[in-house]
Amino acid sequence: MSKLEKLNPLFYPKTVAVVGATDNPSKHGNWYMRSIINRGFPKEHLYPINPNEGKVLEIKTYPRVQDVPEPLDHVIFAIPKKIIKQILKDCVEAKAKFAVIFTSGFSESDLDPEEGKKLEKELLEIISGSNTQIVGPNGMGVYSFEGRLSFPYLYNPPVNGSVSFASQSGGHVVALATIADFWFNIHFNKMVSFGNGINLEATDYLEYYIEDPKTKIINLYVEGVRNGPRFFQALKEACRFKPVIVWKGGWTSAGSRATLSHTGSLAGSNRIWQTVFKQAGAIQVHDMEELCDVTMAFLRINPPKGFNAAILGGGGGQSVVSTDECESAGLKVPAFSPEIKEKLSGIVPDIGTGIANPIDASYFVYNDLSMYSKLLELVDKDPKIDIIMLHHESMWGAAKELLFETLKKSKEQLEKPFVMVLYPSVGPREYTPEMEAEHLKVLKQYLKEGFLVYPSVYRASNAIYKMVQYHKFLECHEILEKASEIPLKAA
Amino acid sequence: MSKLEKLNPLFYPKTVAVVGATDNPSKHGNWYMRSIINRGFPKEHLYPINPNEGKVLEIKTYPRVQDVPEPLDHVIFAIPKKIIKQILKDCVEAKAKFAVIFTSGFSESDLDPEEGKKLEKELLEIISGSNTQIVGPNGMGVYSFEGRLSFPYLYNPPVNGSVSFASQSGGHVVALATIADFWFNIHFNKMVSFGNGINLEATDYLEYYIEDPKTKIINLYVEGVRNGPRFFQALKEACRFKPVIVWKGGWTSAGSRATLSHTGSLAGSNRIWQTVFKQAGAIQVHDMEELCDVTMAFLRINPPKGFNAAILGGGGGQSVVSTDECESAGLKVPAFSPEIKEKLSGIVPDIGTGIANPIDASYFVYNDLSMYSKLLELVDKDPKIDIIMLHHESMWGAAKELLFETLKKSKEQLEKPFVMVLYPSVGPREYTPEMEAEHLKVLKQYLKEGFLVYPSVYRASNAIYKMVQYHKFLECHEILEKASEIPLKAA
Repeated sequence: MSKLEKLNPLFYPKTVAVVGATDNPSKHGNWYMRSIINRGFPKEHLYPINPNEGKVLEIKTYPRVQDVPEPLDHVIFAIPKKIIKQILKDCVEAKAKFAVIFTSGFSESDLDPEEGKKLEKELLEIISGSNTQIVGPNGMGVYSFEGRLSFPYLYNPPVNGSVSFASQSGGHVVALATIADFWFNIHFNKMVSFGNGINLEATDYLEYYIEDPKTKIINLYVEGVRNGPRFFQALKEACRFKPVIVWKGGWTSAGSRATLSHTGSLAGSNRIWQTVFKQAGAIQVHDMEELCDVTMAFLRINPPKGFNAAILGGGGGQSVVSTDECESAGLKVPAFSPEIKEKLSGIVPDIGTGIANPIDASYFVYNDLSMYSKLLELVDKDPKIDIIMLHHESMWGAAKELLFETLKKSKEQLEKPFVMVLYPSVGPREYTPEMEAEHLKVLKQYLKEGFLVYPSVYRASNAIYKMVQYHKFLECHEILEKASEIPLKAA
Repeated sequence: MSKLEKLNPLFYPKTVAVVGATDNPSKHGNWYMRSIINRGFPKEHLYPINPNEGKVLEIKTYPRVQDVPEPLDHVIFAIPKKIIKQILKDCVEAKAKFAVIFTSGFSESDLDPEEGKKLEKELLEIISGSNTQIVGPNGMGVYSFEGRLSFPYLYNPPVNGSVSFASQSGGHVVALATIADFWFNIHFNKMVSFGNGINLEATDYLEYYIEDPKTKIINLYVEGVRNGPRFFQALKEACRFKPVIVWKGGWTSAGSRATLSHTGSLAGSNRIWQTVFKQAGAIQVHDMEELCDVTMAFLRINPPKGFNAAILGGGGGQSVVSTDECESAGLKVPAFSPEIKEKLSGIVPDIGTGIANPIDASYFVYNDLSMYSKLLELVDKDPKIDIIMLHHESMWGAAKELLFETLKKSKEQLEKPFVMVLYPSVGPREYTPEMEAEHLKVLKQYLKEGFLVYPSVYRASNAIYKMVQYHKFLECHEILEKASEIPLKAA
């Protein structure tokens, strides 16, 4: 059975049961029911399990998992730890496919990790040789746009996406869903919070996402894996087909101690992880912001051919700093070709400006925002340039719309990948939270229009650098593969 | 004459003239006049210079600098390049102390830098042997809260500060004034934008700020200096008395080319600059955000005794990542002392939590925000801890106020430096620009109350790490000095 067939019932279940479902609105069993109903999962295949209540949210309950009249794909455990073994045995007896265990207090316990480890071992023994697999414990479970599943605390934007996320932290999934929507316009196809991952672990979800046709980009947050070589193999395989952006939690020595308290994970040596990521071709990031930065680049531009950036904007100090930030992130800012530079000098006046790359059009561009069309057209033609980066204030009033329209037109005409950096407009007056809100609305306007847009040159450059590196990695692989096809002559 | 006496007339002038002053509101000569008047500089000592107009902004004009009836301290040049030599000669003849030259188009020109260099040389020849010194050219000039001076585009918050800034970029001064006020509640005592710095350069302003009793913290943005060893000497001297936070523009190879176009500066090798900063004890930063981050730490907490941080918050993944960010910035997150850990276990329930450092109080702390008082009191007592860091959502409604009041009380009682990290509250719904504005209002509430508060653990940790490093540097210096006082025995 392929990984896809094996895990499809988890992400696209025909039937779901919630053990611990209740009408009490302060209980997780209630929240899970509502999350799933809100996503539009068909009520006739949703089974609240509760020995004491006749109906939960107007849906008929069953006392035990085994009493449900259909085969069960996806069983959510919203119950205290003390009855977990019994419910799991019930699942095995009912041949339920997935036990999604929200309950925590296992090997991640700071006070009695040994007791927790023992319990985890017992859970594994219960499912041994059965058709039941465990997601969790200490995980929030599954979000699936098309599978119509979600879990408590999670924002469900009304938009499907092509990114799938597997995370050992439930908090990260919750935060990411909202942050990715707001700042990046990134949306997810599937997400799983798998906590301690005692049975199905990062590798399993990774293998599923490789085969899943709805997943174009893979995001991982991983604290530890039980089988390192298997993870490495899967990661290597995945990176050949889809970009895998990995956020490793616990990569410092104290951070690694913290993963023990969080998911009972042995985080392992950072050096080994880095080597694994590099050799597999995965893209390592260090926080949620960077995870989104890199993912957004893959979603919004074609891969640049190389690392050479043109930088455009207005302001001398800003031009210097943008160049520093660009190069310190790994990109290059080469001098323009002489013929391009000569043509640029016909557009940008020679007072308080710069045209060597970076282009600093100073306040002249503020007086005439359409100057950007000409500048962009020119640098797009320079064979030395692989990517075009424009940094500018978001502006107010009519100038705001003019800038947007100008750049929208240019973006459509440019052959090379185009990235924007949008700052708030800070003028000779107090800046206020309301002005920041206006600035963010402009940012969202660009995002909605399909621009790749960041709040800083460093973040833009870092994301693009990592994207280019990934494509260089793929190229090398292809070359090596082709080389291996050439028959060697007998010496 | 001390540096203080020498430059005081620049920052606290008795008289100011604006050459090129005009009633035409689209001209810089008009903007400079208005900036100075708005700051409350006495009109009876403000002299518009214009051969063609009788009055500018209702103040009597004089045709030439020499015609002004008082000795001139501070003469602003808002004029085209072609008459600059003549006006400078006038200043010399009038024995004016400072010629503040806004005009650009000198050695920073991309098209004809040689011509620009020649002109700069001529300007230096004109003032040679005279009482007149040049600020600029290609600089915006001086902001001085008590000297009642400002320049166009600059936000003048109605608050005095203890930070002084010297910058080769005018744009950075303008942006910093607004950004420092909004995000950091940092205010400036003095600022100077000195552009190409052909006469007075970074070193001169640095020497002045060392002696200036109103300056407690020095901020520098420098692209290049003409006399390296002199700069190094001044920097070494300054760092013994006041923290100097230096942002070096053009520290990458393309960035260094960009400084040529900006201020005609030879940026020099990054490695040499880094060595200079390290040996002098200056704190190097890489962008405006970091400049403010570090400055804010010095303004708001006493120096921590060492690098060991306690981390508190709610959320497992967030605790792991906070620990990673803290350690990757250079701080340490040691395990708590056993007796403290034991007491912590009496406060934080053992399900889905962590108390080993980081403290992850999970959702329990959300149910009872006052739990933080007890936790903070405990970790404050741990001799292994030098600094206490708490990360949390900014919250909404009543919980928002409860959190604020709880932490305000704790802050007053804590013996160790306390730093906060405040995230937006992202819940199971769409986040909006208006919600971000509300979050920023909460951030500003903490800032106003005197909290040291950052938007990310990494930024908080990085700023504190650099602050502790600076104080360790001072300690070493004292030890070495004392050691050198011990008479050596004859061998």
